[in-house]
Amino acid sequence: MSGNSFGKLFTVTTFGESHGPAIGCVIDGCPPGLVLSEADIQPDLDRRKPGTSRHVTQRQEADTVEILSGVYEGKTTGTPIMLIIRNQDQRSKDYGNIVESFRPGHADYTYWHKYGVRDPRGGGRSSARLTAPVVGAAAIAKKWLHEQYGTVFMGCMSQLGDIPVPFEAWEHVPNNPFFAASGDADLIARMETAMDALRRDGDSIGARIDVVAKNVPVGLGQPIYDKLDADIAYAMMGINAVKGVEIGAGFRSVAQRGSEHGDELTLEGFVGNNAGGVLGGISTGQDITVSIAIKPTSSIRTPRRSIDKAGNPVMVETFGRHDPCVGIRATPIAEAMLALVLIDHALMHRAQCGDVRVDTPKIA
Amino acid sequence: MSGNSFGKLFTVTTFGESHGPAIGCVIDGCPPGLVLSEADIQPDLDRRKPGTSRHVTQRQEADTVEILSGVYEGKTTGTPIMLIIRNQDQRSKDYGNIVESFRPGHADYTYWHKYGVRDPRGGGRSSARLTAPVVGAAAIAKKWLHEQYGTVFMGCMSQLGDIPVPFEAWEHVPNNPFFAASGDADLIARMETAMDALRRDGDSIGARIDVVAKNVPVGLGQPIYDKLDADIAYAMMGINAVKGVEIGAGFRSVAQRGSEHGDELTLEGFVGNNAGGVLGGISTGQDITVSIAIKPTSSIRTPRRSIDKAGNPVMVETFGRHDPCVGIRATPIAEAMLALVLIDHALMHRAQCGDVRVDTPKIA
Amino acid sequence: MSGNSFGKLFTVTTFGESHGPAIGCVIDGCPPGLVLSEADIQPDLDRRKPGTSRHVTQRQEADTVEILSGVYEGKTTGTPIMLIIRNQDQRSKDYGNIVESFRPGHADYTYWHKYGVRDPRGGGRSSARLTAPVVGAAAIAKKWLHEQYGTVFMGCMSQLGDIPVPFEAWEHVPNNPFFAASGDADLIARMETAMDALRRDGDSIGARIDVVAKNVPVGLGQPIYDKLDADIAYAMMGINAVKGVEIGAGFRSVAQRGSEHGDELTLEGFVGNNAGGVLGGISTGQDITVSIAIKPTSSIRTPRRSIDKAGNPVMVETFGRHDPCVGIRATPIAEAMLALVLIDHALMHRAQCGDVRVDTPKIA
Amino acid sequence: MSGNSFGKLFTVTTFGESHGPAIGCVIDGCPPGLVLSEADIQPDLDRRKPGTSRHVTQRQEADTVEILSGVYEGKTTGTPIMLIIRNQDQRSKDYGNIVESFRPGHADYTYWHKYGVRDPRGGGRSSARLTAPVVGAAAIAKKWLHEQYGTVFMGCMSQLGDIPVPFEAWEHVPNNPFFAASGDADLIARMETAMDALRRDGDSIGARIDVVAKNVPVGLGQPIYDKLDADIAYAMMGINAVKGVEIGAGFRSVAQRGSEHGDELTLEGFVGNNAGGVLGGISTGQDITVSIAIKPTSSIRTPRRSIDKAGNPVMVETFGRHDPCVGIRATPIAEAMLALVLIDHALMHRAQCGDVRVDTPKIA
Repeated sequence: MSGNSFGKLFTVTTFGESHGPAIGCVIDGCPPGLVLSEADIQPDLDRRKPGTSRHVTQRQEADTVEILSGVYEGKTTGTPIMLIIRNQDQRSKDYGNIVESFRPGHADYTYWHKYGVRDPRGGGRSSARLTAPVVGAAAIAKKWLHEQYGTVFMGCMSQLGDIPVPFEAWEHVPNNPFFAASGDADLIARMETAMDALRRDGDSIGARIDVVAKNVPVGLGQPIYDKLDADIAYAMMGINAVKGVEIGAGFRSVAQRGSEHGDELTLEGFVGNNAGGVLGGISTGQDITVSIAIKPTSSIRTPRRSIDKAGNPVMVETFGRHDPCVGIRATPIAEAMLALVLIDHALMHRAQCGDVRVDTPKIA
Repeated sequence: MSGNSFGKLFTVTTFGESHGPAIGCVIDGCPPGLVLSEADIQPDLDRRKPGTSRHVTQRQEADTVEILSGVYEGKTTGTPIMLIIRNQDQRSKDYGNIVESFRPGHADYTYWHKYGVRDPRGGGRSSARLTAPVVGAAAIAKKWLHEQYGTVFMGCMSQLGDIPVPFEAWEHVPNNPFFAASGDADLIARMETAMDALRRDGDSIGARIDVVAKNVPVGLGQPIYDKLDADIAYAMMGINAVKGVEIGAGFRSVAQRGSEHGDELTLEGFVGNNAGGVLGGISTGQDITVSIAIKPTSSIRTPRRSIDKAGNPVMVETFGRHDPCVGIRATPIAEAMLALVLIDHALMHRAQCGDVRVDTPKIA
Repeated sequence: MSGNSFGKLFTVTTFGESHGPAIGCVIDGCPPGLVLSEADIQPDLDRRKPGTSRHVTQRQEADTVEILSGVYEGKTTGTPIMLIIRNQDQRSKDYGNIVESFRPGHADYTYWHKYGVRDPRGGGRSSARLTAPVVGAAAIAKKWLHEQYGTVFMGCMSQLGDIPVPFEAWEHVPNNPFFAASGDADLIARMETAMDALRRDGDSIGARIDVVAKNVPVGLGQPIYDKLDADIAYAMMGINAVKGVEIGAGFRSVAQRGSEHGDELTLEGFVGNNAGGVLGGISTGQDITVSIAIKPTSSIRTPRRSIDKAGNPVMVETFGRHDPCVGIRATPIAEAMLALVLIDHALMHRAQCGDVRVDTPKIA
Repeated sequence: MSGNSFGKLFTVTTFGESHGPAIGCVIDGCPPGLVLSEADIQPDLDRRKPGTSRHVTQRQEADTVEILSGVYEGKTTGTPIMLIIRNQDQRSKDYGNIVESFRPGHADYTYWHKYGVRDPRGGGRSSARLTAPVVGAAAIAKKWLHEQYGTVFMGCMSQLGDIPVPFEAWEHVPNNPFFAASGDADLIARMETAMDALRRDGDSIGARIDVVAKNVPVGLGQPIYDKLDADIAYAMMGINAVKGVEIGAGFRSVAQRGSEHGDELTLEGFVGNNAGGVLGGISTGQDITVSIAIKPTSSIRTPRRSIDKAGNPVMVETFGRHDPCVGIRATPIAEAMLALVLIDHALMHRAQCGDVRVDTPKIA
């Protein structure tokens, strides 16, 4: 209710601040009997963690996850799974100069007005660091979904600032620092150059990220609210810095005609996927395709106008260690959120409809 | 939980089907003491109702709302408000020919696989007709928000298919059949011509709708999940036919630099509103600005390939009375959803933070 | 959230007031495919309705239920089921004299302080009449539970004021006006005499009601909160006029020793049921046994001291038509609440644990 | 949803097992600005902790609480407060002999059937040890309620097995090992003797506990479900080993007449408190009075019949360190649960009704 839990049946409740002693989450509702250890979770955290290339924040965090409850003799028990990640490199002094003023584009101003309390340590609770426990929780969701349905999740960057990154193949994603699904070395080099220039300028840039879930069972989602696509939009827009969400054809739908947009059905399957895998809020069994817009990082070294808590005009520069493009590390986060939405709907579907099976030949 | 309720503290639970005897909703959590009668609700329903121009469905529904509970001697009592709208023009026979097959772009296929039951009467529960009770509920929310904070809601169409509709002034919106904020008679004529051609073709088109809330208190929204913008995305993507949602600069953020995107603060207020009125998931007090993409209506007269429940290939044409651009009537619906999100967060904020007041001079 | 919905997965949201035009509920989460018509619901409403003997209120209400949505061609569709019951005999004038004062033992004083609004029409929302829609909703739950697991529900009065009503057999319950599981004609006559005397005195009396669910699957309930017995206690204490709830041995447990209380297990089954069918918050598969204390009706003709809204001392007598023992009609209501708790937990269990099956021989 | 969270607006999500590395909870929804440190929480944990007298379990746990998030510079920030308590004395070997069989009166059988997983380490998740984090969370709730309204909580044992413990004065409670509100040294000696005999016998006994909240604001609670008394019943019945709950006159109401039960109002206040401080589910401003029945501890040294997982008959004796009367340590737990219910309703009331004020002179 107070905005720190995600999901209704597979519920992830997070805690912690960017520069406090630890961050983590409690996962309530994980089905029992799933084989689970930290080794299932750490790889996803490693994809998200800081310091993996010169294009992301240089904060040093191992982001080592520890399971404190809910697993017994290597299996989930059906009771709450607690994940804890201890913070290591919390240099609070980096923030000393911005305690009294509001950084443009940040939550400083709104948190101050909401809570009447200001936690300046790295943005405190509003830091994107708080996505780490969620990525951990989602690794569990992914494992369960994969075992049940063979569902897999992929994500890539499709645009970096004004540089489009055409999709070639998923296999390229781990081979460059941008999660680009491209094997074009020139393109990657251009992206590196652009990022290096940005860092020199003390500026930042936005990105577009695409995520896909494959092998999603048909029938997940609710009829009016809690539509699958509505919950995906909620999950994605809740990621730090996201300003736009599309499902399937997204904003391209505006200029489409019905005779073009509506995906026809044949015995070989749907012809096209403008729907993005969701019709009437319920999964079709096709790939779920989502695209998100991520704004440029708000923490930049360029001086900017602001005010302080006393109401005086000030100039603000941010000297902490920040990602010049938060969109880069957003890829595994977006995959994670999609996985959390899907497991919640999968469990809900099981509650409501049990083993409803219809005899229509399932199309491809 | 099962997807037919919206909101946590101002909770709207809807019921009914497009071609059943009645549709409506129960509103739980409306604060007591609000002066309320059907006259406060009907005008918003009239803006949404069918049959108001030749460019929308010709189904004849007065959409007369009746309050069955929760109001005593002209004031809300704090107990559930029940709104009922009786269906009048439910010609089920129009749907006779599509009972056994799945209309492309529709929820037929997914409902069938989810529930194992098919209600072909106008799409049953998946019909956009089910937005009517929500518009009714939101009229109550709007009235309360206006009395408390002076909040007002506006919406307009900013693109019809490939025709951009530049914003001139809100006053134009009620003076044309498209909710265009434009006084350009030539533009309106071009839109009318395009719509007439579409109808002749038996085809449909998408639209882009913009909605704005003004005079929103600062501090609404939750920190990690249940961010104000996340809940807005959820609400908007849940409207029938919506495929994309933007807050503030939306997808334009991708190519922006941090030095351009982050809205500076001065004593005169924020300089720009790329944020769309939300920072860190919490309202800034600026206008909340939202833009949505609406796909072309799936029900078209053009024959399309599909399959039937027995797995045979079929051709489907839809002869019912449909909107050739569902985006037109989506404007009041999008305003309604925004109002429902805001009242829920306003009540939540009151629960959590009571009368938190900080002494920073509130900026313009 | 605002207290007018019951259940998380099989959610019943009620609306209406005792003397408004109609009462009813929306049921969200009923599994699809259940054969259902009003004929499945009306019998339970008839057991609860007023006017069935001289020992209950003489208000004339047919309590005819109508299904307005969620059922198509005789089967539930998985979408919200709306039940409406129109009020017929709402003599508001009966309440004229108590509008300005607070009836002792009633919600008048608390509603006034909570909402700042007073709806004197038969207690408005706080009337026990609002249990009617719940009994309707529970009839659907009972039907589903019976089809799935063979679960059945029974209830009886075990004490009327100071008259104990020993249990003989369930078959007697429908054969007397008190839901007594007794064939002892002398006892029934004594109860009738006591009730007649009470009515002459303008007074009222309490009662104890026992309810039982048989053929409950093992494994329903949650570990720490949302224990099955906790949810039963919540459901029962929420019934108007209930002041105490026991599960199994209840308050007798206080003086028991562990060697007596803990039900041993043998291959023939549990030896005894002090647990009342719940261990650690989870059903054992034994009968769920519940007992509740119902206070005497607060509306009595005997003059009582009170104050009015202006703070003056007044004497209050209540002349409306009231049950001299609300406990009598509470039996079907308590059964209903038990059914609603069980269906919710059955659906939740299906979500969490799917088809968990262990190979221990299930004991009798 | 999955039963490990308590409360809707002040939400406590617990994790951990009796014999795992740590237990704790995340508190979401604590209002910002509350001065808070571990020193506010530890005293309540100390009242509940094991090993304080020879009449409770001799397990050695300091139950030292640590705040890991949500507090900055000595004040709550409005974001999640994480409390962690590390387990110290988890002798898993004590449970070796009962891994394969089901202890009578325990959750072993039901957890096994629900989850298909057995965590025998001290009952794992079903252990009463899991009430420790809740007592910690409630200490925060109590502090806030006291600052806002002056609310205070008291509890005492009113019956130990068949020994009634008459109430004399609250001041006696901390001066004996039983939470008895009695200064009668003979009575305390008799209780000690009875407990010593029980331990020698390897048996256990039940208890009745009374809890009271004073200075509760009028108007807390919801109308139909989520009644204040319903939520109290839910909270109390959810405490390990509770089998019965009473509010106010409780089961004594059954034999009362309306002319006796309904508390009259005078300008000096209510005459009596049969209602237990709740009318129509909403607080009257009087003391909230609750009484609970606690069953005898299920873990006893006396051999008892049971079966094992393979379906063979076995005899079970429990040799771990256990409370011979779990009721003793239940007193601070019951106070804690009452505090958690009240803060949740206080926040909810603030959401719904804001500063509703009526001008009736508030009675004493």
